[in-house]
Amino acid sequence: MDESSRADCLYLDDLVVGQRFSSAKHTIDAAQIKAFAAQFDPQPFHTDEKTAERTFFNGLAASGWHTAAITMRLNVESGPRLAGGIVGAGGELSWPAPTRPGDILHVESEVVEITPSRSRPDRGTIFLLSRTMNQRGEVVQILKAKLVVPRRGTS
Amino acid sequence: MDESSRADCLYLDDLVVGQRFSSAKHTIDAAQIKAFAAQFDPQPFHTDEKTAERTFFNGLAASGWHTAAITMRLNVESGPRLAGGIVGAGGELSWPAPTRPGDILHVESEVVEITPSRSRPDRGTIFLLSRTMNQRGEVVQILKAKLVVPRRGTS
Repeated sequence: MDESSRADCLYLDDLVVGQRFSSAKHTIDAAQIKAFAAQFDPQPFHTDEKTAERTFFNGLAASGWHTAAITMRLNVESGPRLAGGIVGAGGELSWPAPTRPGDILHVESEVVEITPSRSRPDRGTIFLLSRTMNQRGEVVQILKAKLVVPRRGTS
Repeated sequence: MDESSRADCLYLDDLVVGQRFSSAKHTIDAAQIKAFAAQFDPQPFHTDEKTAERTFFNGLAASGWHTAAITMRLNVESGPRLAGGIVGAGGELSWPAPTRPGDILHVESEVVEITPSRSRPDRGTIFLLSRTMNQRGEVVQILKAKLVVPRRGTS
Protein backbone atom coordinates (compact mmCIF):
# COMPACT_ATOMS: atom_id res chain seq x y z
CA MET A 1 0.00 0.00 0.00
CA ASP A 2 1.55 3.35 -0.92
CA GLU A 3 1.85 6.13 1.64
CA SER A 4 -0.60 8.47 -0.12
CA SER A 5 -3.51 6.07 0.40
CA ARG A 6 -2.66 5.77 4.08
CA ALA A 7 -3.39 9.40 4.89
CA ASP A 8 -6.81 8.68 6.38
CA CYS A 9 -5.86 5.27 7.78
CA LEU A 10 -5.86 4.28 11.42
CA TYR A 11 -2.56 3.51 13.15
CA LEU A 12 -2.28 1.78 16.52
CA ASP A 13 -1.97 5.21 18.14
CA ASP A 14 -5.34 6.25 16.70
CA LEU A 15 -7.30 3.35 18.17
CA VAL A 16 -9.08 3.20 21.51
CA VAL A 17 -10.77 0.34 23.31
CA GLY A 18 -14.51 0.54 22.65
CA GLN A 19 -14.11 2.04 19.17
CA ARG A 20 -16.80 0.63 16.87
CA PHE A 21 -17.20 0.05 13.15
CA SER A 22 -20.24 -1.02 11.13
CA SER A 23 -19.81 -2.56 7.68
CA ALA A 24 -21.86 -2.45 4.50
CA LYS A 25 -24.26 -5.32 3.73
CA HIS A 26 -23.89 -8.47 1.66
CA THR A 27 -26.79 -10.62 0.46
CA ILE A 28 -25.96 -14.30 0.17
CA ASP A 29 -27.95 -16.65 -2.07
CA ALA A 30 -28.07 -20.41 -2.72
CA ALA A 31 -25.81 -20.11 -5.78
CA GLN A 32 -23.03 -18.45 -3.75
CA ILE A 33 -23.41 -21.02 -0.96
CA LYS A 34 -23.12 -23.93 -3.39
CA ALA A 35 -20.24 -22.42 -5.37
CA PHE A 36 -18.14 -21.86 -2.23
CA ALA A 37 -19.01 -25.32 -0.90
CA ALA A 38 -18.16 -27.02 -4.19
CA GLN A 39 -14.69 -25.53 -3.98
CA PHE A 40 -13.92 -25.69 -0.25
CA ASP A 41 -16.54 -27.55 1.81
CA PRO A 42 -18.30 -30.14 -0.36
CA GLN A 43 -20.77 -31.54 2.17
CA PRO A 44 -24.46 -32.15 1.33
CA PHE A 45 -25.83 -29.55 3.79
CA HIS A 46 -23.85 -26.90 1.85
CA THR A 47 -24.35 -28.20 -1.71
CA ASP A 48 -27.89 -29.54 -2.14
CA GLU A 49 -31.22 -28.23 -0.78
CA LYS A 50 -33.01 -31.59 -0.84
CA THR A 51 -30.31 -33.58 0.92
CA ALA A 52 -29.69 -30.71 3.33
CA GLU A 53 -33.23 -31.08 4.71
CA ARG A 54 -32.32 -34.47 6.20
CA THR A 55 -29.15 -33.26 7.93
CA PHE A 56 -28.15 -31.53 11.18
CA PHE A 57 -28.87 -28.19 9.48
CA ASN A 58 -32.46 -28.98 8.36
CA GLY A 59 -31.90 -27.14 5.09
CA LEU A 60 -29.20 -25.50 2.99
CA ALA A 61 -26.68 -23.54 5.07
CA ALA A 62 -23.47 -21.74 4.15
CA SER A 63 -20.14 -23.22 5.17
CA GLY A 64 -18.87 -21.44 8.28
CA TRP A 65 -15.73 -20.68 6.30
CA HIS A 66 -17.90 -18.94 3.71
CA THR A 67 -19.43 -16.76 6.43
CA ALA A 68 -15.90 -16.05 7.66
CA ALA A 69 -14.74 -15.12 4.14
CA ILE A 70 -17.72 -12.79 3.59
CA THR A 71 -17.03 -11.20 6.99
CA MET A 72 -13.45 -10.54 5.88
CA ARG A 73 -14.62 -8.98 2.63
CA LEU A 74 -17.04 -6.69 4.46
CA ASN A 75 -14.37 -5.65 6.98
CA VAL A 76 -11.74 -5.06 4.26
CA GLU A 77 -14.09 -2.93 2.17
CA SER A 78 -16.15 -1.14 4.79
CA GLY A 79 -14.75 -1.95 8.23
CA PRO A 80 -11.89 -0.23 10.08
CA ARG A 81 -9.41 1.38 7.67
CA LEU A 82 -6.26 0.14 9.37
CA ALA A 83 -2.87 1.34 8.15
CA GLY A 84 -1.15 -1.61 6.52
CA GLY A 85 -4.50 -3.34 5.96
CA ILE A 86 -6.29 -5.99 7.98
CA VAL A 87 -3.50 -8.42 8.87
CA GLY A 88 -4.67 -11.25 11.10
CA ALA A 89 -2.49 -13.50 13.24
CA GLY A 90 -5.45 -15.65 14.24
CA GLY A 91 -8.39 -15.54 16.59
CA GLU A 92 -11.36 -17.23 18.16
CA LEU A 93 -14.32 -18.06 16.00
CA SER A 94 -17.84 -19.34 16.60
CA TRP A 95 -20.95 -19.82 14.50
CA PRO A 96 -23.96 -19.54 16.85
CA ALA A 97 -26.51 -19.80 14.00
CA PRO A 98 -26.35 -20.94 10.36
CA THR A 99 -26.18 -18.55 7.41
CA ARG A 100 -29.10 -19.28 5.06
CA PRO A 101 -29.88 -18.41 1.41
CA GLY A 102 -31.34 -14.90 1.27
CA ASP A 103 -29.61 -13.70 4.43
CA ILE A 104 -28.41 -10.10 4.37
CA LEU A 105 -25.20 -9.98 6.38
CA HIS A 106 -23.32 -7.10 7.92
CA VAL A 107 -20.52 -6.87 10.47
CA GLU A 108 -20.42 -4.91 13.73
CA SER A 109 -16.86 -4.63 15.05
CA GLU A 110 -15.33 -3.28 18.25
CA VAL A 111 -11.74 -2.79 19.41
CA VAL A 112 -11.54 -4.77 22.67
CA GLU A 113 -7.80 -4.79 23.41
CA ILE A 114 -4.74 -2.79 22.28
CA THR A 115 -1.19 -3.99 22.98
CA PRO A 116 1.89 -2.13 21.73
CA SER A 117 4.68 -4.60 20.94
CA ARG A 118 7.46 -4.69 23.53
CA SER A 119 10.08 -5.92 21.06
CA ARG A 120 8.93 -4.06 17.91
CA PRO A 121 8.38 -0.33 18.47
CA ASP A 122 6.92 0.04 14.96
CA ARG A 123 3.80 -2.03 15.64
CA GLY A 124 1.36 -3.59 18.06
CA THR A 125 -1.58 -5.93 18.14
CA ILE A 126 -5.26 -5.37 18.74
CA PHE A 127 -8.16 -7.70 19.32
CA LEU A 128 -11.08 -6.78 17.11
CA LEU A 129 -14.40 -8.40 18.05
CA SER A 130 -16.53 -8.77 14.91
CA ARG A 131 -20.14 -9.91 15.10
CA THR A 132 -21.63 -10.93 11.77
CA MET A 133 -25.39 -10.45 11.88
CA ASN A 134 -28.26 -11.28 9.56
CA GLN A 135 -31.31 -9.15 8.69
CA ARG A 136 -33.19 -10.52 11.73
CA GLY A 137 -30.46 -9.33 14.10
CA GLU A 138 -29.26 -12.89 14.73
CA VAL A 139 -25.53 -13.32 15.20
CA VAL A 140 -24.24 -15.90 12.71
CA GLN A 141 -20.53 -15.50 13.53
CA ILE A 142 -18.46 -14.12 16.38
CA LEU A 143 -14.79 -13.56 15.60
CA LYS A 144 -12.27 -12.20 18.07
CA ALA A 145 -9.37 -11.53 15.73
CA LYS A 146 -5.80 -10.69 16.68
CA LEU A 147 -4.58 -8.09 14.19
CA VAL A 148 -1.14 -6.58 13.61
CA VAL A 149 -1.31 -2.78 13.34
CA PRO A 150 1.60 -0.40 12.60
CA ARG A 151 2.39 2.58 14.82
CA ARG A 152 2.43 6.11 13.46
CA GLY A 153 5.62 7.68 12.11
CA THR A 154 7.73 4.58 12.27
CA SER A 155 7.64 3.23 8.72
CA MET B 1 -26.30 -38.11 3.96
CA ASP B 2 -27.99 -41.48 3.52
CA GLU B 3 -27.40 -44.28 5.99
CA SER B 4 -25.64 -46.55 3.50
CA SER B 5 -22.75 -44.15 3.10
CA ARG B 6 -22.35 -43.91 6.86
CA ALA B 7 -21.40 -47.57 7.29
CA ASP B 8 -17.69 -46.86 7.62
CA CYS B 9 -18.10 -43.50 9.34
CA LEU B 10 -16.89 -42.58 12.79
CA TYR B 11 -19.42 -41.85 15.54
CA LEU B 12 -18.56 -40.20 18.84
CA ASP B 13 -18.33 -43.66 20.40
CA ASP B 14 -15.63 -44.67 17.89
CA LEU B 15 -13.28 -41.79 18.68
CA VAL B 16 -10.49 -41.71 21.26
CA VAL B 17 -8.28 -38.88 22.44
CA GLY B 18 -4.97 -39.04 20.58
CA GLN B 19 -6.51 -40.47 17.40
CA ARG B 20 -4.74 -39.01 14.38
CA PHE B 21 -5.60 -38.35 10.75
CA SER B 22 -3.41 -37.23 7.84
CA SER B 23 -4.95 -35.62 4.76
CA ALA B 24 -4.08 -35.66 1.08
CA LYS B 25 -2.08 -32.75 -0.37
CA HIS B 26 -3.10 -29.57 -2.15
CA THR B 27 -0.76 -27.38 -4.19
CA ILE B 28 -1.63 -23.69 -4.10
CA ASP B 29 -0.49 -21.28 -6.81
CA ALA B 30 -0.57 -17.52 -7.38
CA ALA B 31 -3.73 -17.76 -9.54
CA GLN B 32 -5.69 -19.47 -6.73
CA ILE B 33 -4.38 -16.97 -4.16
CA LYS B 34 -5.43 -13.99 -6.31
CA ALA B 35 -8.82 -15.47 -7.24
CA PHE B 36 -9.77 -16.11 -3.60
CA ALA B 37 -8.49 -12.69 -2.56
CA ALA B 38 -10.39 -10.90 -5.34
CA GLN B 39 -13.59 -12.42 -4.01
CA PHE B 40 -13.06 -12.34 -0.25
CA ASP B 41 -9.90 -10.51 0.86
CA PRO B 42 -8.95 -7.86 -1.71
CA GLN B 43 -5.78 -6.52 -0.11
CA PRO B 44 -2.59 -5.87 -2.13
CA PHE B 45 -0.49 -8.52 -0.33
CA HIS B 46 -2.99 -11.14 -1.56
CA THR B 47 -3.72 -9.77 -5.04
CA ASP B 48 -0.51 -8.39 -6.61
CA GLU B 49 3.06 -9.73 -6.45
CA LYS B 50 4.76 -6.35 -7.05
CA THR B 51 2.81 -4.42 -4.45
CA ALA B 52 3.01 -7.34 -2.02
CA GLU B 53 6.81 -6.99 -1.90
CA ARG B 54 6.46 -3.64 -0.11
CA THR B 55 4.03 -4.88 2.54
CA PHE B 56 4.17 -6.69 5.89
CA PHE B 57 4.27 -10.01 4.00
CA ASN B 58 7.29 -9.18 1.75
CA GLY B 59 5.66 -10.94 -1.17
CA LEU B 60 2.41 -12.54 -2.29
CA ALA B 61 0.72 -14.55 0.47
CA ALA B 62 -2.61 -16.34 0.64
CA SER B 63 -5.42 -14.90 2.74
CA GLY B 64 -5.56 -16.76 6.05
CA TRP B 65 -9.20 -17.49 5.21
CA HIS B 66 -8.03 -19.16 2.01
CA THR B 67 -5.67 -21.39 4.02
CA ALA B 68 -8.60 -22.14 6.34
CA ALA B 69 -10.87 -23.00 3.39
CA ILE B 70 -8.25 -25.31 1.83
CA THR B 71 -7.78 -26.97 5.24
CA MET B 72 -11.53 -27.62 5.36
CA ARG B 73 -11.51 -29.10 1.86
CA LEU B 74 -8.62 -31.43 2.75
CA ASN B 75 -10.31 -32.54 5.98
CA VAL B 76 -13.69 -33.08 4.28
CA GLU B 77 -12.19 -35.14 1.48
CA SER B 78 -9.37 -36.99 3.23
CA GLY B 79 -9.55 -36.25 6.96
CA PRO B 80 -11.62 -38.01 9.62
CA ARG B 81 -14.78 -39.58 8.14
CA LEU B 82 -17.18 -38.40 10.81
CA ALA B 83 -20.79 -39.59 10.77
CA GLY B 84 -22.94 -36.60 9.87
CA GLY B 85 -19.96 -34.87 8.26
CA ILE B 86 -17.59 -32.25 9.63
CA VAL B 87 -19.92 -29.85 11.45
CA GLY B 88 -18.07 -27.07 13.23
CA ALA B 89 -19.40 -24.86 16.01
CA GLY B 90 -16.26 -22.72 16.03
CA GLY B 91 -12.70 -22.86 17.23
CA GLU B 92 -9.37 -21.20 17.78
CA LEU B 93 -7.29 -20.30 14.76
CA SER B 94 -3.77 -19.05 14.20
CA TRP B 95 -1.56 -18.50 11.19
CA PRO B 96 2.07 -18.82 12.39
CA ALA B 97 3.52 -18.49 8.86
CA PRO B 98 2.16 -17.28 5.51
CA THR B 99 1.02 -19.61 2.74
CA ARG B 100 2.99 -18.81 -0.44
CA PRO B 101 2.49 -19.59 -4.14
CA GLY B 102 3.81 -23.10 -4.85
CA ASP B 103 3.23 -24.37 -1.32
CA ILE B 104 2.07 -27.97 -1.05
CA LEU B 105 -0.28 -28.14 1.92
CA HIS B 106 -1.56 -31.06 3.92
CA VAL B 107 -3.34 -31.36 7.26
CA GLU B 108 -2.36 -33.39 10.33
CA SER B 109 -5.27 -33.71 12.75
CA GLU B 110 -5.64 -35.14 16.23
CA VAL B 111 -8.65 -35.66 18.51
CA VAL B 112 -7.75 -33.76 21.70
CA GLU B 113 -11.03 -33.77 23.65
CA ILE B 114 -14.31 -35.75 23.56
CA THR B 115 -17.40 -34.58 25.43
CA PRO B 116 -20.75 -36.42 25.24
CA SER B 117 -23.63 -33.95 25.47
CA ARG B 118 -25.39 -33.93 28.84
CA SER B 119 -28.67 -32.66 27.41
CA ARG B 120 -28.66 -34.43 24.01
CA PRO B 121 -27.95 -38.18 24.28
CA ASP B 122 -27.75 -38.47 20.48
CA ARG B 123 -24.58 -36.41 20.13
CA GLY B 124 -21.47 -34.89 21.64
CA THR B 125 -18.65 -32.55 20.78
CA ILE B 126 -14.98 -33.10 20.10
CA PHE B 127 -12.04 -30.77 19.74
CA LEU B 128 -10.02 -31.63 16.66
CA LEU B 129 -6.59 -30.02 16.47
CA SER B 130 -5.62 -29.57 12.81
CA ARG B 131 -2.15 -28.42 11.81
CA THR B 132 -1.85 -27.33 8.19
CA MET B 133 1.73 -27.80 7.02
CA ASN B 134 3.67 -26.90 3.91
CA GLN B 135 6.26 -28.99 2.03
CA ARG B 136 9.05 -27.69 4.29
CA GLY B 137 7.25 -28.94 7.40
CA GLU B 138 6.36 -25.39 8.49
CA VAL B 139 2.99 -25.00 10.19
CA VAL B 140 0.94 -22.36 8.32
CA GLN B 141 -2.27 -22.80 10.32
CA ILE B 142 -3.28 -24.26 13.67
CA LEU B 143 -7.02 -24.81 14.14
CA LYS B 144 -8.57 -26.24 17.28
CA ALA B 145 -12.09 -26.87 16.03
CA LYS B 146 -15.14 -27.74 18.10
CA LEU B 147 -17.13 -30.28 16.11
CA VAL B 148 -20.57 -31.79 16.67
CA VAL B 149 -20.51 -35.59 16.28
CA PRO B 150 -23.53 -37.95 16.50
CA ARG B 151 -23.54 -40.99 18.78
CA ARG B 152 -24.03 -44.50 17.45
CA GLY B 153 -27.49 -46.04 17.18
CA THR B 154 -29.42 -42.93 18.08
CA SER B 155 -30.48 -41.55 14.68
